[in-house]
Amino acid sequence: MPGVEGGIRFPADRLRAWSAQVFQKVGVVKDDAALLTDTLIEANLRGVDTHGVTRVLCTYVKRIQAGVMSPRTKLAVVREHASTALIDCKNSIGQVGAARAMRLAIDKAAKTGVAFVAVTHSNHYGAAAYWAMMAPEHGMIGFSSTNAPATVAPTGGRTAMLGTNPFAIAIPAGQEQPMVLDLATTVVARGRVMLYAKQNKPLEPGWAFDERGVPTTDPHAALKGLLAPIGGYKGYGISLAIDLLCGVLTGSSYGSHFPGFLADNLKDPTDVGSVFAAINVESFMDLPEFKASMDKALREMKNSERAEGVKRIYIPGEIELETKADRLKHGIPIPEAVVKDFVALGQELSVPFPQA
Amino acid sequence: MPGVEGGIRFPADRLRAWSAQVFQKVGVVKDDAALLTDTLIEANLRGVDTHGVTRVLCTYVKRIQAGVMSPRTKLAVVREHASTALIDCKNSIGQVGAARAMRLAIDKAAKTGVAFVAVTHSNHYGAAAYWAMMAPEHGMIGFSSTNAPATVAPTGGRTAMLGTNPFAIAIPAGQEQPMVLDLATTVVARGRVMLYAKQNKPLEPGWAFDERGVPTTDPHAALKGLLAPIGGYKGYGISLAIDLLCGVLTGSSYGSHFPGFLADNLKDPTDVGSVFAAINVESFMDLPEFKASMDKALREMKNSERAEGVKRIYIPGEIELETKADRLKHGIPIPEAVVKDFVALGQELSVPFPQA
Repeated sequence: MPGVEGGIRFPADRLRAWSAQVFQKVGVVKDDAALLTDTLIEANLRGVDTHGVTRVLCTYVKRIQAGVMSPRTKLAVVREHASTALIDCKNSIGQVGAARAMRLAIDKAAKTGVAFVAVTHSNHYGAAAYWAMMAPEHGMIGFSSTNAPATVAPTGGRTAMLGTNPFAIAIPAGQEQPMVLDLATTVVARGRVMLYAKQNKPLEPGWAFDERGVPTTDPHAALKGLLAPIGGYKGYGISLAIDLLCGVLTGSSYGSHFPGFLADNLKDPTDVGSVFAAINVESFMDLPEFKASMDKALREMKNSERAEGVKRIYIPGEIELETKADRLKHGIPIPEAVVKDFVALGQELSVPFPQA
Repeated sequence: MPGVEGGIRFPADRLRAWSAQVFQKVGVVKDDAALLTDTLIEANLRGVDTHGVTRVLCTYVKRIQAGVMSPRTKLAVVREHASTALIDCKNSIGQVGAARAMRLAIDKAAKTGVAFVAVTHSNHYGAAAYWAMMAPEHGMIGFSSTNAPATVAPTGGRTAMLGTNPFAIAIPAGQEQPMVLDLATTVVARGRVMLYAKQNKPLEPGWAFDERGVPTTDPHAALKGLLAPIGGYKGYGISLAIDLLCGVLTGSSYGSHFPGFLADNLKDPTDVGSVFAAINVESFMDLPEFKASMDKALREMKNSERAEGVKRIYIPGEIELETKADRLKHGIPIPEAVVKDFVALGQELSVPFPQA
């Protein structure tokens, strides 16, 4: 996911305090505002600014103000078995439903070995990694996925029928950091294509289609067209499977039925579905042995022979962790245009946006 | 996966009877020989000849004859919880371990909602789809994945550290056929690159790397190099996650530790690990409602607007199903070179290979 190049650096704590106040001001209860804020700040710290305050805070606030997303939580567990649950988020904050679901999955997996919890009638839940990453500290492997409004066509199609439908998996290690994989099922994000269009730079082959559904390297044609899923029909299949699990199985929206994407629609609930899973390592191997094996496996990967011109081989999640260390020290960069939005929002809500 | 172009057509039943006899002749008990044969014939029927008798029967027989793979099953459940189990395959036939694991997953999911069963110290288990596809007839969503000897480098690397590490997911529908996704985490199979090399035809960008780890479209350089994972670092991450789950978590081999690929090594056990999961639909939604929603979702996808020049939009698994109908009617094509191998093997074992 593209980070923010440049921008003004703000200390994470200052952004956190402001964001929590903003959400409370529009009706989110204190604990939920803190949780919601934490998911956004964590995304910013990890360099995933597309899922941080930078891109979604104002959208969330607008949707709450417009009455399209409920700030108060009325979660209900509508079906439950020893290792599963279905939670109705009732169009409340996606992050609040997600936290409840992942905690429940972890509790259940501690007893039965594995658990799979789904959330229906939910909203954007932030970065998938946040939820998967709750598992490793409990000695578990975490998984989460969500569907999303359609931006991708099936292989051979020209109409958006599937979302970017991301998923994340987090696997604990010992002295090494957990492996944290979080990916959208498209080759590149739309933001990347927009950047190329600005620079009039041709896209790499395999990134996008034009509006006739024909592969293109013209960034302008691609912006009118559709993003390509990873591995062609393979990524289409993965995205479809995620849509069927998160949308159809949970009774949420799916396919082309979404009323519009986050910021584009201030009238209809998003109605996405999300799934969460936890696997208890101890159900398969003693945790210390597993952690030692993970350390060995990850180190072998990192120390394997590099391709010509490559400085380093990364484990998924490593770059994000290093970005976090940097941003905790030097602050989170916020583009100037976003700072202006924040200042205006702060004035509107009488929660002044802090100085950098 | 590439099918077999041309070849001599044999009725599936005749191949099935011969294959079952061959496996019994080298020491596989009757039921296991029938199961093993069924997985291979089913792969051939579905057009996945890379996992059918065509490519693996002789290899399996050689490995059993060489004493590298045990024909007799001594499966042991070494850890078990309400929703999980770890089964030691003890270097016996991968398919026998897989069948036991998937049945156990289905039984457990019927009680607790979801189950996750792993198999350790196993062998090649055929096509992943076969195992996932056991779930839909029980009103469940099935999943399976396996690791494999290394043929893929991590992003930025030049040494094979990961297998093609395929996974499959099968989701039941009503009048529509289940969605069955089965994919390797590389953009193309090695067989495809070999075909292009034979024809001196340049590869598409993004398919492969040369031996220095640099992207190449030269099929000859690619054959000395490595296959590219789908979506670059995304596919690397998926493949790594599968290796950690199937290899490290189960206590099987992983990364670069495999002694060699199937046919290349007649001295050491393969020692792969595999995982199997089942999700009971009724734990989330009444099955008839789910099936009706699935039919609607799949039909919408198939009927969505097509790209220029495209005749049809497929659901994953549809092509395989149509190939199966064709091959049940017209027979399974076996390349002439393979027919010769089968005739020779039949003579060696006194199990004459049948006429077409």
